[in-house]
Amino acid sequence: MSDQKLVSRSEDFSEWYNTLCLRADLADYGPVRGTMIVKPYGWALWENVTAALDKRFKATGHLNAGFPMFIPKSFIEKEKKHVEGFAPELAVVTHGGGEELEEPVVVRPTSETIIGHAYAKWIKSYRDLPLLINLWNSVVRWEMRTKLFLRTLEFYWQEGHTAHATYEEAQAETIQMLNIYADVYENEAAIPVYRGRKSASERFAGADETYSLEAMMGDGKALQSCTSHNLGQNFAKAFEIKYLDKNNQLQYCWTTSWGFSTRFIGALIMVHGDDQGLIMPPRLAPYQVVIVPIAKNDAEKEKVMPVVDRIRSELAAADVRVKVDERDETPGFKYNDWEMRGVPLRIEVGPKDVEKGSVAMARRDVPGREGKSFVSQSGIADTVKAMLDTIHKALYDRALKMRDENTHDPKDYAEFKNAMEKGFALSYWCGEAECEAKIKEETKATTRCIPLDGQPDVAGKCIHCGKAAKEKALFAKAY
Amino acid sequence: MSDQKLVSRSEDFSEWYNTLCLRADLADYGPVRGTMIVKPYGWALWENVTAALDKRFKATGHLNAGFPMFIPKSFIEKEKKHVEGFAPELAVVTHGGGEELEEPVVVRPTSETIIGHAYAKWIKSYRDLPLLINLWNSVVRWEMRTKLFLRTLEFYWQEGHTAHATYEEAQAETIQMLNIYADVYENEAAIPVYRGRKSASERFAGADETYSLEAMMGDGKALQSCTSHNLGQNFAKAFEIKYLDKNNQLQYCWTTSWGFSTRFIGALIMVHGDDQGLIMPPRLAPYQVVIVPIAKNDAEKEKVMPVVDRIRSELAAADVRVKVDERDETPGFKYNDWEMRGVPLRIEVGPKDVEKGSVAMARRDVPGREGKSFVSQSGIADTVKAMLDTIHKALYDRALKMRDENTHDPKDYAEFKNAMEKGFALSYWCGEAECEAKIKEETKATTRCIPLDGQPDVAGKCIHCGKAAKEKALFAKAY
Repeated sequence: MSDQKLVSRSEDFSEWYNTLCLRADLADYGPVRGTMIVKPYGWALWENVTAALDKRFKATGHLNAGFPMFIPKSFIEKEKKHVEGFAPELAVVTHGGGEELEEPVVVRPTSETIIGHAYAKWIKSYRDLPLLINLWNSVVRWEMRTKLFLRTLEFYWQEGHTAHATYEEAQAETIQMLNIYADVYENEAAIPVYRGRKSASERFAGADETYSLEAMMGDGKALQSCTSHNLGQNFAKAFEIKYLDKNNQLQYCWTTSWGFSTRFIGALIMVHGDDQGLIMPPRLAPYQVVIVPIAKNDAEKEKVMPVVDRIRSELAAADVRVKVDERDETPGFKYNDWEMRGVPLRIEVGPKDVEKGSVAMARRDVPGREGKSFVSQSGIADTVKAMLDTIHKALYDRALKMRDENTHDPKDYAEFKNAMEKGFALSYWCGEAECEAKIKEETKATTRCIPLDGQPDVAGKCIHCGKAAKEKALFAKAY
Repeated sequence: MSDQKLVSRSEDFSEWYNTLCLRADLADYGPVRGTMIVKPYGWALWENVTAALDKRFKATGHLNAGFPMFIPKSFIEKEKKHVEGFAPELAVVTHGGGEELEEPVVVRPTSETIIGHAYAKWIKSYRDLPLLINLWNSVVRWEMRTKLFLRTLEFYWQEGHTAHATYEEAQAETIQMLNIYADVYENEAAIPVYRGRKSASERFAGADETYSLEAMMGDGKALQSCTSHNLGQNFAKAFEIKYLDKNNQLQYCWTTSWGFSTRFIGALIMVHGDDQGLIMPPRLAPYQVVIVPIAKNDAEKEKVMPVVDRIRSELAAADVRVKVDERDETPGFKYNDWEMRGVPLRIEVGPKDVEKGSVAMARRDVPGREGKSFVSQSGIADTVKAMLDTIHKALYDRALKMRDENTHDPKDYAEFKNAMEKGFALSYWCGEAECEAKIKEETKATTRCIPLDGQPDVAGKCIHCGKAAKEKALFAKAY
């Protein structure tokens, strides 16, 4: 664990974030500039969210597979917009086995092209559709300005790639996956999200439509929290992914792709963390409960430990992820340490608790006396489970309140500019790229998405140019 | 699925293997020469074996983490033997983000060096030990002669990396992990293995001792099925991994590493497969049971399907992985297809079975009438589970019998040379590298390992040079 002091969130949000990643033992910097080591505590969190996603992917008929990290450089160039988007960020392998390669290969920045190549070979008839494959892997984008979890040279993610017989099926898949992501963000991570459609300028390189979830971070900025793309027939045409339909006619497939990455961990830190450190949402926390035995001497230890062990067993049997901290350190040191790591619930067991048949329970999300209660040892598993649900709801409600308080509805462009100092604005937008670019130039805010939910029934006027506008867009400065 | 015909195993084992990987839908070739796509059916098998391993790793205190794929080229050069072993196989990234890199980076061939760099930073005192970390990832070795699963340019694996305070602890860890691998091979995959120590010439580049499991394939050749290395203080000294002991003295750590890869799938195919295709060991099979409804018309379908659905539910509720094949194909087509894919047990439900309250059950490992039985629908889950155990045991016994029948104890070198045409020899060996090299030159057989079990109590004479020899070595031609 790093010894660096954690500055307060309000003082320097960026510094607070960087230090917290290290202090909470989530990650470290790799030796190659811009790379990241995800440490065991961070990886355990990643395993929990991948399990939550994987279960949902499988329940909707998706199968996992493994595709090579190396892609012929020529593949990237086959889809016109794709190469424009990704060429500047490629890592290129020029030598292998001691010799210069005839054709350089790139390390995948994303796998649409190699998937396209394989699907063209595998898909023959309508009977082979839909083809629903997901990959858990890492990808490489050679970024210049990096930040742990948010933007690293290599990052972990899943990328889903599906092929369908019709546009409608592909579109339904695109939205289904967006909804699965929203379900995980809200119901597992306690992070409220806007579901929306990207503007043309913010689309994935090669997509007909890109959808994203946008969440508000603790400093009021937006984080694009995952994306789901309807790729139309762009990759199908570039890679000749065709099928024979029921009338024996050769047709191009309709494809989608969708991804969720370790950026998620960045979102989790920035939404829930506070000046004491991380706060893990209970349903994904590597440890949901830490038990700290309080014993000044061996006699007290003999009294306390059997109760500690019994509580640990009862919680483990009820599928609560529990850790007993038996280190040779003071209780105060342990409290601080687990607060920094964000364990949602702490249970203290001392000699007096043993006598009274109770334990002290401290909520990570409610500091001080207010978050502390004394509860009976009997029925502890039920008490803990109920409390974990309470904490989940409290974290979600707090994040939603923060977001709503900082989501503005400015009357005019002057108010809009002011609003963009902190938070989101939901404002009519004419849909023109030019207007979007001007707003970005003048405020550094971008269209995050055009929300799918809560659009007004009536048309209005663009917040920037005043022209007629059908929909409101979500504007914010973004990570 | 490939349409290529499967040749018989005895006719051309290598061709049989290559075709089977494609026909059983396990894998396909990637576009970059030597790379492999693991298709969903192969990946599901890999997920099952990774789960079996991961459970055992966690139960013995290991934590997973994520390390970058990119390693500074200079790292590889820090451990003298390591660079000799791996330099010729490296993939080198020379360009990133459109520019030539100041220092080229390599894609990890294995992670000892980057782990060494991190551990040197993380480990401060004896309190930080042992450090027990495992990585699930893929690594790259630029191989010239590749073969699906057995030797591919990129392959999937886990690599464990641990640091300890003493040699004894590191040695205990090395053997513990070897035993975990043996447990998975024998009790999950039904593959008997020899546990043994590698000769100096066959050691991992940078290890003090390498241990391996060696299994006999269907053609009598050996496959090194995983390895566990006691790295001594070699990497600790190269990367300055030190800790303060209880007396406040700075000491070098003792480290280990151990790995299990997608080669395992190659072993599984070559041990259990037959001329009809794959045979999946029941405990790891993606589908343990396939149900084929037999119905000539809609009336029969209406009769049969409720029973099929009920059986499927009962099996799924008992945690049996079950698939119902409702495709619009003939039963014969389906039988062949699932035989090719190696599903251990097939259940057929036709109108007559419905009347009798029974189903037909066919074992994949016993062809024809002999493997077929009619069993009651009531209590089907228990019947199936017992049968899956029977199949596991039968596969293991068959593989063991094959191995024992082809493991020779040659009287002299002439007999030894003969024995090396097919199978293993357990023979006294003097331990000299020169003798080992001569044997390899003359017979193409190598020392696979010096077995840990079943060594004779008395010394003997080297099978090649006749000098005194304390132990027997396992000799064989190998993949």
